[in-house]
Amino acid sequence: MRKTMETKMETIDLKGKDRMLIVGGTGGTGSWFARYFKDRGFSVTVWGPSRRVDVAERLGVEFAGDLLTEVAGSDVVVLSVPIKDTERVAEELAPRMKPGSLLMDFTSLKAGPMEAMVKWAPEGVEVLGTHPMFGPTIPTIRGQTVILVPAEGRCGTWLSPMEEIFRRGGARVEVLGAEEHDRIMAVVQALTHFAYISIASALASLDFDVERSRRFMSPVYEIMIDFVGRILAQSPELYASIQENPEARRVRDAYIRECKRLSELADDGDIAGFQEAMRAAADHFGGGEEALARSDKLIGLWIENREGDRRGRSAPKAASVIRRASGGSASKAPRS
Amino acid sequence: MRKTMETKMETIDLKGKDRMLIVGGTGGTGSWFARYFKDRGFSVTVWGPSRRVDVAERLGVEFAGDLLTEVAGSDVVVLSVPIKDTERVAEELAPRMKPGSLLMDFTSLKAGPMEAMVKWAPEGVEVLGTHPMFGPTIPTIRGQTVILVPAEGRCGTWLSPMEEIFRRGGARVEVLGAEEHDRIMAVVQALTHFAYISIASALASLDFDVERSRRFMSPVYEIMIDFVGRILAQSPELYASIQENPEARRVRDAYIRECKRLSELADDGDIAGFQEAMRAAADHFGGGEEALARSDKLIGLWIENREGDRRGRSAPKAASVIRRASGGSASKAPRS
Repeated sequence: MRKTMETKMETIDLKGKDRMLIVGGTGGTGSWFARYFKDRGFSVTVWGPSRRVDVAERLGVEFAGDLLTEVAGSDVVVLSVPIKDTERVAEELAPRMKPGSLLMDFTSLKAGPMEAMVKWAPEGVEVLGTHPMFGPTIPTIRGQTVILVPAEGRCGTWLSPMEEIFRRGGARVEVLGAEEHDRIMAVVQALTHFAYISIASALASLDFDVERSRRFMSPVYEIMIDFVGRILAQSPELYASIQENPEARRVRDAYIRECKRLSELADDGDIAGFQEAMRAAADHFGGGEEALARSDKLIGLWIENREGDRRGRSAPKAASVIRRASGGSASKAPRS
Repeated sequence: MRKTMETKMETIDLKGKDRMLIVGGTGGTGSWFARYFKDRGFSVTVWGPSRRVDVAERLGVEFAGDLLTEVAGSDVVVLSVPIKDTERVAEELAPRMKPGSLLMDFTSLKAGPMEAMVKWAPEGVEVLGTHPMFGPTIPTIRGQTVILVPAEGRCGTWLSPMEEIFRRGGARVEVLGAEEHDRIMAVVQALTHFAYISIASALASLDFDVERSRRFMSPVYEIMIDFVGRILAQSPELYASIQENPEARRVRDAYIRECKRLSELADDGDIAGFQEAMRAAADHFGGGEEALARSDKLIGLWIENREGDRRGRSAPKAASVIRRASGGSASKAPRS
């Protein structure tokens, strides 16, 4: 049932340091990784404020009886909690950790959480900020990106085994500094989400019939609209906190400024000016032909699949076809 | 070489009315459809202002020696010219058409071009506005949308065979009025493009390194960035003219208003307000779980493909693998 597309599930030699605690391990992301690390040889314990022992049971891992005792005995403590709680939880738990152990987090911002973890983890405890760039609906880590942010001078022994653990699952691992991470994510995440959420909000304000519009879609719109829906279907708390990235404000401002400039060109019927703006943007952007080829391919895959489903829909179990193809129970289970 | 994924290429009985002229038939869209209609039993002639007889030869169709004579003898005249030229070309050519013939266009706007076609086509000539919602890089019409806008009271005999010709190729055909078409396209095309072009423009103004950012991508960003690149790689003239849709201004205004509102909530650190705005948008939007499942599936397909290519890249002919998968020469030829 939990068959994934991962290549090989080799465990790596943890030299006996295999006791991992995931704080927030009963949540979506936390339980996804509880399973991931368990499958790779860690002895995983989870803890969550709502005491969902049933989730731990379903995952086949322990639920921490006493949180502070578990922290003190763990080789790796992972904070898989909302961004706004990360600093407080680091302050509460990190001072209890033992020398030689590793403190990690799974948040989408790095500067603030890293500062807190470095501040509260005792000397001799390593700190590795981690940003898995995917949500728990993804069935496998293969092809997904994981960004690692090692604390300067405080991640000598754990960085390379952790890189290895993600790489062996098929992830693309990148190592970055906290500030650079946040600067890049202000575009990659904050701006992308912001543009999409604003589209949804505009469609609501226009009272535009999204469902009906599906009949008149181009593939570009169809795929965009599903990404908009994807974002809206997930945690508003997470998406709101990503906008709190200190770099995001500057990026949003630049976006709104360009929206206004382009809109004015169109309002004035300045076709030549609009075209010139597009060309300037294209010059900076680069790689248009490759993007065209890749997106043609994506659209082709998408249509093949959609048309395949449509034929399948006459069969009685069409819903299960879709569910299976999108990751099936493996992708749903950890969301509980 | 021109093997496509289309199901079956049945010709339909045109009752001898098979002589088609495509004005602009040597351009990207025009030549794509020259081939499409030729394969379905039409005797196709093309004409283009740059006299590209070589393109006609490659397509295996005639190039019109004398344009006006060809118009007068044709059963179907298709205007595949830039939106801004459609009205002028209709004025010039439509009056020459013979009774019982059909005038079509392929533009992305409908109100203006329809008005002109109806005005200039003599009584007894039918008028069918047509909007193929895809570009000539697409290898097959299967699963693509074609919108037909029959002129009121002036498309009695041609509507149904034309619907059939597109349906048999595997297209989704929708019939709409001109005003409703433009209202829907102000969102489906104009807003989608506008948001994406503005992103490119913002990234240029921030001097953001797009190529480097690919290393730190989430699939949502990766796919978005390729759609941005896709739009930038195509005709600025087409994209500028789509913004000229008279309904688009209102939609752009609503979008910029919502961008500002959401940005202010984030600037003020009003996390609760931002979340509430997201929830309200989601309520209007609907279908979040379906969007999540569909986009999970798309992301899965995309990653499978990308990772497959990556393995293939070690082989000497990687570039041809990519080209083949994205439609190969069939998708490139009509762009000349």
